[in-house]
Order: sequence, then structure tokens, then C-alpha cells
Amino acid sequence: MPLKQIIANLRPKRPARLPGLVRFVGAGPGDPDLLTLKALRALQEADVVIHDGLVSGDIVRLATSALKFIPVGKKGFGSHTPQETINAHIVENAQKGYNVVRLKGGDPTVFARLDEEIEALETHDIAYDIVPGITAASASLATIGQSLTKRGRNASARILTGHDMKGFADHDWRALAGSGEVAAIYMGKRAARFIQGRLLMHGAAPETPVTVVENASRADQTVLATTLLNLPDAVEQANPTGPALMLWGLAPRDAATHPVLKQELA
Amino acid sequence: MPLKQIIANLRPKRPARLPGLVRFVGAGPGDPDLLTLKALRALQEADVVIHDGLVSGDIVRLATSALKFIPVGKKGFGSHTPQETINAHIVENAQKGYNVVRLKGGDPTVFARLDEEIEALETHDIAYDIVPGITAASASLATIGQSLTKRGRNASARILTGHDMKGFADHDWRALAGSGEVAAIYMGKRAARFIQGRLLMHGAAPETPVTVVENASRADQTVLATTLLNLPDAVEQANPTGPALMLWGLAPRDAATHPVLKQELA
Repeated sequence: MPLKQIIANLRPKRPARLPGLVRFVGAGPGDPDLLTLKALRALQEADVVIHDGLVSGDIVRLATSALKFIPVGKKGFGSHTPQETINAHIVENAQKGYNVVRLKGGDPTVFARLDEEIEALETHDIAYDIVPGITAASASLATIGQSLTKRGRNASARILTGHDMKGFADHDWRALAGSGEVAAIYMGKRAARFIQGRLLMHGAAPETPVTVVENASRADQTVLATTLLNLPDAVEQANPTGPALMLWGLAPRDAATHPVLKQELA
Repeated sequence: MPLKQIIANLRPKRPARLPGLVRFVGAGPGDPDLLTLKALRALQEADVVIHDGLVSGDIVRLATSALKFIPVGKKGFGSHTPQETINAHIVENAQKGYNVVRLKGGDPTVFARLDEEIEALETHDIAYDIVPGITAASASLATIGQSLTKRGRNASARILTGHDMKGFADHDWRALAGSGEVAAIYMGKRAARFIQGRLLMHGAAPETPVTVVENASRADQTVLATTLLNLPDAVEQANPTGPALMLWGLAPRDAATHPVLKQELA
């Protein structure tokens, strides 16, 4: 069956208009091809799209029936929309009976402040569901050809943030400093020197590999392979301006042996 | 633009036939709608599909041009294909010049033994790339309406396995036992009593919520909301036979206030 026929045959699982439904939709890491079919359908059915500033226009524009687009959230460390305002936009449009898609970069369940928005909906008794998305960690791992876990190296991995609303985020650095530990660190760019200091203080090996993937999966993706010792200087020199994901304990595989990956890294 | 036109317009980013390319493709948690567009295209372009036993026929059959389908891997705790045999299938078919899709449940970078297969390709100088997928943790969190992290509760979360090839997997249980910790535990079903014992021994509160999502995102999805105290008995009683994801430290949101979620849970 050709691709377009398969898509055409995907029957909507619910009527396009149930009054007041809010769908939290994961936009994935950036490449529109990394949207799920379910996310694409949700966008197609949306009356109102309330989207993070970081979600690309290529994805937002897939909501071809939408009457209204409301960009919210912060762009990197620049200006941002207060959470209360975002909540108000969602509640107000749902109460008008619109199909609202709240489009979030990556996966709505990972560092996306989903709880605050769901709690606003619960207060107003508004129905919602969540369409998962590919998170930046997953796309970054795919880019460098590594697994989050590997037998003989690590049986668990951590997902954490380097920076939160209050500043640098604190964590169990001692545990992370151990040999073979792996973590996907979101919003770690500005915290690179802080993270380095904490990990070295707790005995992490200076030669531990760290890889920073900027704009994972996008056309302008970059991969910075460095070590804990050189991390802050390398980040400062590369000066990534897009969203960056830091992979603690992982180096890209030797690209020489797999040309496709090499091409993607180039 | 209508959905099918958008899909039709998605131009292939590489020629359909580059000899010997292997694509590791994430099939997602089960719902075919949770495939990415990129995964769907990779399936459409595949000559040979080597798929995990747990990936549903609905997804495998999307590879409409494939000449050969090779089911491998284990089904739960039943019989399984040795890793060396899987590697040999991949290498052999790639060396014949086929477009090989190695289709893995969930995300190829999460507990999918990706490294072993990539290393076999590296040995034979075969090109590959990785198409990320929605992992079971993400689909399970979406089902219960919770985030992996939440301000004031946890700034980091763990992904780990309850069971590996050698038996019950050991972890830093002391750190996990702390208040507000959250973990997504893969393959934890059989290890429920072991996990309970370790966590209680390290001082975890018996009333800590644990949610077990079986067959996340599939039509036969079930949600078991329990506590650490009751975990092993509850799992034994529910006796889930499909793949199950255990969310340590999280309870489903009160379904009463959001009818869509309630329906999904029912």
C-alpha cells in the first residue's frame, strides 16, 4: 500500500470537534519527520495552536485548519511568557469550545512544565490528553550512535536539567561522578562550568567523555565531542545558540566506519 | 493542505537503495499512530525487515515493499533468538545490498541491545543510521497524565531495568528510596518483589506510589496503580502478560476531572 493511502486510511479515533478538548502534543526535537502520526493528526484537527517559541514554523504550519496560533514560552534565555498567561490562553480557548493543541518541543512529559498546565485544566474541569513526542535525548543518542544504557557499562541512566527557573540545578553529583555513569542533561549549556566543577569535586575522571548536541535532528545540528576537563571552554568556544542536549559519559562512535552517520555529523 | 498531500510531499532524503544500509528503527510502544513519519518512510523503503517478536503485525505490515520479514528477539521470558544470530541476519542481508530495517519496539537507544548490533556492523564496515522511537516510559507517562520531572518534587529521573540477562539488576537503591524520586523501570514485572525488598531495605516509604502500565498505548493497555507496600501482590494478582513499564514514585492523576484520560484508563 502506498504511503499516502495508508495515511488517508488512518481514521480519526475521535470526532474532530469535542468541545473544550486540550491536547498536549510533543513536536519532537525539530525535524518534522520526527513527529508521530498521532501528533500530525492532532495538528490537522486543531482549531487553536498554542506553541512554544522554539517549535519550528515547519511544524506549526502543519495545523492547516487552525484559526489561531499563539506563540508562548521562552526562547532560550530571552523573554518568556509567564506560566499564568499560558494557562489562561489554554483555558480560555478550551472554554470557547475550540480543539486546542498545546504544542511543546520534544516530549510533553520531559522538562515541559506540563503539570502546571494540567492543574489549570483540572481546576476548570477541562478534558485533555497527551500525545508523546521524541525527546531531545533520544534524537541526540541516535545522532551519535549510542545507547542510553549498555551491558557492562551502565544498567541505568539519568535525565536531568542543568538549569531551572531558580538558576543552576543541584543533583546527586557524587553518584553521577562514578565510572560508567550516563546522563542526558537538558539546559546544560550555561551550566557547563558549574556542572564541571561539581563533577570534578566529587571525583569524576577529567577524561570522561561529554557530547553536546545542538539542534538535534535539525538541518543545522552540530555535535561537540569533548571531555569533562575541556567542557566549559569547548562550549564557550562553540557558543551554541540553539537548544543543546549534553550527554554525560558518552562519546560519538567513530564515524569513519559508518558513512551515513559521518555525513550526518559533518 | 490535507494530510495525505503533506505525506505525499515528504520527499525521501536519500535514494531508496543505497547498498548495504541498515536502519535501526524505533517502532514505538505499540500504537501504530505513535510511529514517526521517518520510521514509516523507512519501513516503506525496506527490502528486509528484521523485527522484534514484540512488535505488532500492524506495524510490521507497513513495510509494503519488503521481500523478507525475519522475526527475532525474545517474547517476554519465552524463547529468544541468540544475539549472534540476529547480528548474522543483519550483516548477511546488508551485504547482499538490501535496505535492511532492524525494527525494535520502543526506542532503539533504550534497553534495545543496540550496541551489540552496531558493533557487528562496524566490524563489517556496513553503514547504518538510527531512527528514534517513542519509548514505553514516555507513552506510559502520557497515559497517566504525569511528567517525568516536576518542580518541587524531582529535578531528575532515572531510567533503569529491573531484570537483565543475568537476572535481577542491581542499582543504587538507596538513592532511589529517597522522597520524591521518580524512575521508569523497564522489565520490572518479574522483579517486583526484589525491587520492593531493596527499596524498603533502604528506607523507602511503603506508601510511595507505583504505577504499572502494561501494553502502553495499545488497545489492550492496562494501568495498575498501587504502592510499594502492595506492589508484588498487586502485580501477581493482575498478572500482566504483555510488556509492562513500572513508574516508581508516580500515581495516575485523578481521572475524574479529565474524561478523555478516564476513558483511556477504563
